[in-house]
Amino acid sequence: MKNSLGAKTLVYPAPVFVIGTYDKMGKPNVMTASWCGICCSQPPCIAVSLRKATYTHGNILARKAFTISIPSETNAKEADYFGLTSGRQTDKLMVTKLTPVEGGRVDAPYVKEFPLILECKLAHVFELGLHTEFVGEVMDVLAEESVLRADGRLDIEKVKPLVFAPDTQGYYGIGHFIGNAFSIGHDV
Amino acid sequence: MKNSLGAKTLVYPAPVFVIGTYDKMGKPNVMTASWCGICCSQPPCIAVSLRKATYTHGNILARKAFTISIPSETNAKEADYFGLTSGRQTDKLMVTKLTPVEGGRVDAPYVKEFPLILECKLAHVFELGLHTEFVGEVMDVLAEESVLRADGRLDIEKVKPLVFAPDTQGYYGIGHFIGNAFSIGHDV
Repeated sequence: MKNSLGAKTLVYPAPVFVIGTYDKMGKPNVMTASWCGICCSQPPCIAVSLRKATYTHGNILARKAFTISIPSETNAKEADYFGLTSGRQTDKLMVTKLTPVEGGRVDAPYVKEFPLILECKLAHVFELGLHTEFVGEVMDVLAEESVLRADGRLDIEKVKPLVFAPDTQGYYGIGHFIGNAFSIGHDV
Repeated sequence: MKNSLGAKTLVYPAPVFVIGTYDKMGKPNVMTASWCGICCSQPPCIAVSLRKATYTHGNILARKAFTISIPSETNAKEADYFGLTSGRQTDKLMVTKLTPVEGGRVDAPYVKEFPLILECKLAHVFELGLHTEFVGEVMDVLAEESVLRADGRLDIEKVKPLVFAPDTQGYYGIGHFIGNAFSIGHDV
């Protein structure tokens, strides 16, 4: 038996991404966003939707670039803080004592202490309503050596990314391995 | 120390969504997609990116509607199977013995046995490269009573959605509760 919950933005899992930009004065700013996802494989692109009221919105339009720093479980408080305050009033990186590093490929800063970084060049801007969708072409992915497996691939159990549950507004960790994609379905 | 992994689509967590459509003959079809995410709060919208080669791509353009059925851990094999085969040759729901149900609000079917459903009306189509991004306006969310908390909100620990790890192509479950969003950052 299914209950109707109405027209809402309820999907599971939602990600927790920290968007890095420079403002007009060159000050690094970060904000947390969950209305995001990969949207193309070739060219590799990711969509990040932001309200026009955010400081980051103007920064992306001005600089045509942003980064995504993916926080680990141990960065949960900082990631939440980045969504609580505006870069207009606050230097959030200074408050949290985290370190902005200029992207190697794009005109935007990332968070040094976070394990996984995407450097993105603005490719498209779509107005959808309350949110603007920014599509960034991924120019490079940077990962801490400590979150790589021996074969050079990313180990999600070492990245320990956060999962956001929209309805109850909670953060969760990644759980146990369930099976290999493009594989376990052969046995259906 | 960060290693450059190149320009790739590596984000964590990525979702596992099953996209439901009718084809020209009215046959229900389902396929699995991970390049998806919420992209607007008002109107509530979700982005689903698909390759032009998929059967679902043509179905969405023809019917202007799709559903998203979110599989639980126990549905992992079926969800993986839906990404391994094409609806051109196969009736995937018949093979898996799962039940298509016509959406109450849109001209598209969902998977009865999956715990959480979004019914979407096609709002925008953006060509990004290999993938086309379909933006659907969420017309209704349906949830099994068994995944709701006493206060009527969705319990992610009962939904037990799958998380996809793109680089190693594995499925994972949801882990432990870490903290409340818009809350734990006050204590940074």
